[in-house]
Amino acid sequence: MKPYSRKYLDFLLNDVFKVSDLCHSSYFKEHSSETFSLALDMTEDLSDRYLGPHLASSDRIVPEVKNGKVEVNPAIKSFIKAAADSGITGATLKFENGGQQLPKTVFGAMEHIQMTQHNSFVMYTDLVNGCTGLIEEFGTEDQKNTFLPNMLSTKWLGTMCLTEPQAGSGLSDLKTKAIANADGTYNIEGQKIFISAGDHDLSENIIHLVLARVEGSPEGTKGISLFIVPKFDLHSGLSNDVTSIAAIHKMGQKATPAMHLAFGASQNCKGQLLGELNKGLLCMFQMMNAARLGVGMTGVSIAATSYYNSLQYAHERVQGKPLTGGKTSIKIIEHPDVRRMLLHQKAIAEGGLAFMLQCYMYLDFEKTKPDQKDKYLALAELLTPVAKSFGAEMGIEAANMGIQVLGGYGYTEDFIQEQLLRDARICSIYEGTTAIHGLAVLGREIMGSKAQVLEIWMSEINLTLHASKNIARLEPLSKDLQTYLDDFKALTLRLLSESSSGKLSQVLGNATPYLEAFAYINIAWVLLKVNLEAYANHSISDLEKDSYFQTVSYYYQYILSRVKGIQHTLNQHDLGLTQFEPGRELIF
Amino acid sequence: MKPYSRKYLDFLLNDVFKVSDLCHSSYFKEHSSETFSLALDMTEDLSDRYLGPHLASSDRIVPEVKNGKVEVNPAIKSFIKAAADSGITGATLKFENGGQQLPKTVFGAMEHIQMTQHNSFVMYTDLVNGCTGLIEEFGTEDQKNTFLPNMLSTKWLGTMCLTEPQAGSGLSDLKTKAIANADGTYNIEGQKIFISAGDHDLSENIIHLVLARVEGSPEGTKGISLFIVPKFDLHSGLSNDVTSIAAIHKMGQKATPAMHLAFGASQNCKGQLLGELNKGLLCMFQMMNAARLGVGMTGVSIAATSYYNSLQYAHERVQGKPLTGGKTSIKIIEHPDVRRMLLHQKAIAEGGLAFMLQCYMYLDFEKTKPDQKDKYLALAELLTPVAKSFGAEMGIEAANMGIQVLGGYGYTEDFIQEQLLRDARICSIYEGTTAIHGLAVLGREIMGSKAQVLEIWMSEINLTLHASKNIARLEPLSKDLQTYLDDFKALTLRLLSESSSGKLSQVLGNATPYLEAFAYINIAWVLLKVNLEAYANHSISDLEKDSYFQTVSYYYQYILSRVKGIQHTLNQHDLGLTQFEPGRELIF
Repeated sequence: MKPYSRKYLDFLLNDVFKVSDLCHSSYFKEHSSETFSLALDMTEDLSDRYLGPHLASSDRIVPEVKNGKVEVNPAIKSFIKAAADSGITGATLKFENGGQQLPKTVFGAMEHIQMTQHNSFVMYTDLVNGCTGLIEEFGTEDQKNTFLPNMLSTKWLGTMCLTEPQAGSGLSDLKTKAIANADGTYNIEGQKIFISAGDHDLSENIIHLVLARVEGSPEGTKGISLFIVPKFDLHSGLSNDVTSIAAIHKMGQKATPAMHLAFGASQNCKGQLLGELNKGLLCMFQMMNAARLGVGMTGVSIAATSYYNSLQYAHERVQGKPLTGGKTSIKIIEHPDVRRMLLHQKAIAEGGLAFMLQCYMYLDFEKTKPDQKDKYLALAELLTPVAKSFGAEMGIEAANMGIQVLGGYGYTEDFIQEQLLRDARICSIYEGTTAIHGLAVLGREIMGSKAQVLEIWMSEINLTLHASKNIARLEPLSKDLQTYLDDFKALTLRLLSESSSGKLSQVLGNATPYLEAFAYINIAWVLLKVNLEAYANHSISDLEKDSYFQTVSYYYQYILSRVKGIQHTLNQHDLGLTQFEPGRELIF
Repeated sequence: MKPYSRKYLDFLLNDVFKVSDLCHSSYFKEHSSETFSLALDMTEDLSDRYLGPHLASSDRIVPEVKNGKVEVNPAIKSFIKAAADSGITGATLKFENGGQQLPKTVFGAMEHIQMTQHNSFVMYTDLVNGCTGLIEEFGTEDQKNTFLPNMLSTKWLGTMCLTEPQAGSGLSDLKTKAIANADGTYNIEGQKIFISAGDHDLSENIIHLVLARVEGSPEGTKGISLFIVPKFDLHSGLSNDVTSIAAIHKMGQKATPAMHLAFGASQNCKGQLLGELNKGLLCMFQMMNAARLGVGMTGVSIAATSYYNSLQYAHERVQGKPLTGGKTSIKIIEHPDVRRMLLHQKAIAEGGLAFMLQCYMYLDFEKTKPDQKDKYLALAELLTPVAKSFGAEMGIEAANMGIQVLGGYGYTEDFIQEQLLRDARICSIYEGTTAIHGLAVLGREIMGSKAQVLEIWMSEINLTLHASKNIARLEPLSKDLQTYLDDFKALTLRLLSESSSGKLSQVLGNATPYLEAFAYINIAWVLLKVNLEAYANHSISDLEKDSYFQTVSYYYQYILSRVKGIQHTLNQHDLGLTQFEPGRELIF
């Protein structure tokens, strides 16, 4: 059993999100549903050959720094070479830069196929895609000519270096220094930590994109610039004074070393500015937003792997008697609670995938619908942190539930299930923790726009609600969702009013549960949309329609209902917003 | 910082549960609050010396079968010896059998102290306690004389052998055979899997308590008997044909090998019957119920360790700026979301501990309140599966949240936090999965008694509600809880009515969410009780009272509120109970 459904992916792309419509634009005019389909075929083949077979084994090979070098699993080398040959590394780059100029929505689907088979090998190629995208957008012609071909071929690989040991999520406290040289280069000095793929023996060079503060620049986030810092000097091939202090041992995703790196320990590390001085964070945000969708997709993909893995087990394992009596032992999929746990994972995987593709689609619409660019940009900005966090948190939940389906066997290394939970666990930390995304949504997006962006989002949902009202079996769901939306709007307005009357800190202290409710409602929307499209579609069999309907019904009853609890939490005035005031000591 | 609060433990024992009242009974008359306190002092000392220092290191030493032998961490040997010397192994056994005859409530507190320091070493001594308790209850004089002294001294250790490779949770499918010999012994033949501490080099012998079916006994659970099967023949010291097929590699709790054992592979394994023929499961249930409380306590204790571990980190780590502005970086405990995650763990740890001790107390009341024995037995039977499941599931949740407090560092092996999650993950599988306990509560207890046992439980809660109504700051909470209780009762009656009108399977399919709601409400009760006792107590400082109130307030607002969602789920008639009917295929 494959750990994803190509059928569902095709249905989402072709029918729900209608990606071939993108080809009416000049940007995507060279493409068609056929080229999209070929890209997915190629990705399936690649994943079957170079990813799936290595998931379990790569968990056992832990990279270490030995004599200043880091050896990683050689299977990664075969994968990145094949990925480069097939053009995956440059999937979304422009033709003129050696890319495939594919829509991000299609790229998202390709990511899903790969990530369900292996959730960490793919980070190497994703980093290439992210770094080259940044250089394409902000680099000089010279930088593009130097770096793009070598990186797209994976002769050189890339990283993003943001986090520092003392600063963690607090980027404004960044201390890495950049000292201007007379020749226009900069000397880089500082340490970075948790750098994924930060060192390895896979490529001739490693191109680090490093955030640093040029001497004399302002404090805080407004004084941060972005630098291209190769591991080896491009001309001499000698060391550029980037050294590996340690390979950090992680709970999961062990194939990708998280490195602690020192830049310029001997004051001899050279970098070149990428983009404008002091605009580094702005540049990096492009890559970070893409990386956030990547992390959300990782969580969603692990949910899918977990679902198919535990589904297969439940179909094979015979154990226990029916609840209603009988002497013959049955397959565990016949036990209602096992079915509940499978449906739960299915709902997360199907809903999550649709949500992620929805976000990628908004990014494509920025290119193809110039007259509505602002709207889609606003939706992408609003929903990216929501989708990232939902994918992360619910990926963890699904992997955890998958273990429960397998019972004692799920806790053993004989099955990949426990690895899936360990791998998934990082997703709510990578690229901004869930709490930080809660603040981004409630603070930056909702409060920052005085809830205007919420209106845009709700008017999009209303299109789906309106269309669902006329379909008998979807009508109760659309009514349900309408109630949730009304309540959510009222809650949002109350929080806005509280925050402007001196309770900002307490309101933002509840940003995480607010984010959760937001995510649950958005998934409810996309799953309704999936069913709406399935209903009208003659190429979809009744069995498939029933399966989609089963998912959405389960989701509304068992997962969306959590929003009732969150609303109850956030609507309590007296107890509500005072819990997190400093001064009440957390003693004992 | 210690990973538990002795102060809170003392408050629970002395004020909330008033354990010294037990000493008025003839069974506990030799004890007093002083002897209880000494037992806890001794446990603290033991845990500081033999448990805490080995938590992280024991995660790295994975037992393997080598030449038929299993070597485990030598630190375990020092611990079990010290535990035996201090009498922990026989804490709850009768004086006449070499025990300490301590109340189970005090034993529970001792377990908590140990488990917060190390959650798997303690399984060795717990198994001794469980096995000897069983032999004390059901063994012949000869069996008691043979096994109790040698096991209490840990010269011999013990195991419980239930699970078989093909049967998992389905005990009725048990295949291990017992063939009667002329001399009254039995030949045992079969395989057992996931046997904790099933093989090691720590003791001269290992005494397996094995469920097996005597030839000619009925099928199903009514034909199962219990046998004492030593690893080495007691007289000759030679092998008793119990062989280790494999040490199963687990996600966590790596210090305790989970063994796959073969009994009688050479038809030469002898056992003796313990208790009556075909009553094995009944006997084993005594040990299993104790083990269930032990697993619940493990989860709760890991929640406490996680709380204190992440609390300490949050007090030390400086990162990020205040939400309300300011240029100085602050300790992360000042961030509202970090405080939320700490309070969340605190509520689980404090509420969970009180819940576990409540269950142990009901078991003690069976001994000390003979006129109300039936009531307390019923409450213990009702609440044991609830407490086990809450401890398990919420221990996992707390450990997961602790990782989030530590951020990227929480995902690394440099801190114990990720190990806590891996260790905790087994708790919802050991000794019956959460689903099985849901069935036990809703099916066996509630339906089986036509909800009478629920009335007993609710009348106990009403005592607390009644007393809380007169205290201004607890009154809103008691009102809240009353509403939850009323709704829960209505829900229960509706489920009972549905189940008797042909929807048994669908109703039981919802037993897990029902169990969750039950657990959340019970914790709400015990936390209210804690605050009620704290309020009236002059030896408790205002700061402590505020801390308890902060916990209960957080709990009601952020965790108990989940019951609103679950009730919404379970109250949906049309969608509600049909999700899990076979026939709706889980395709794709």
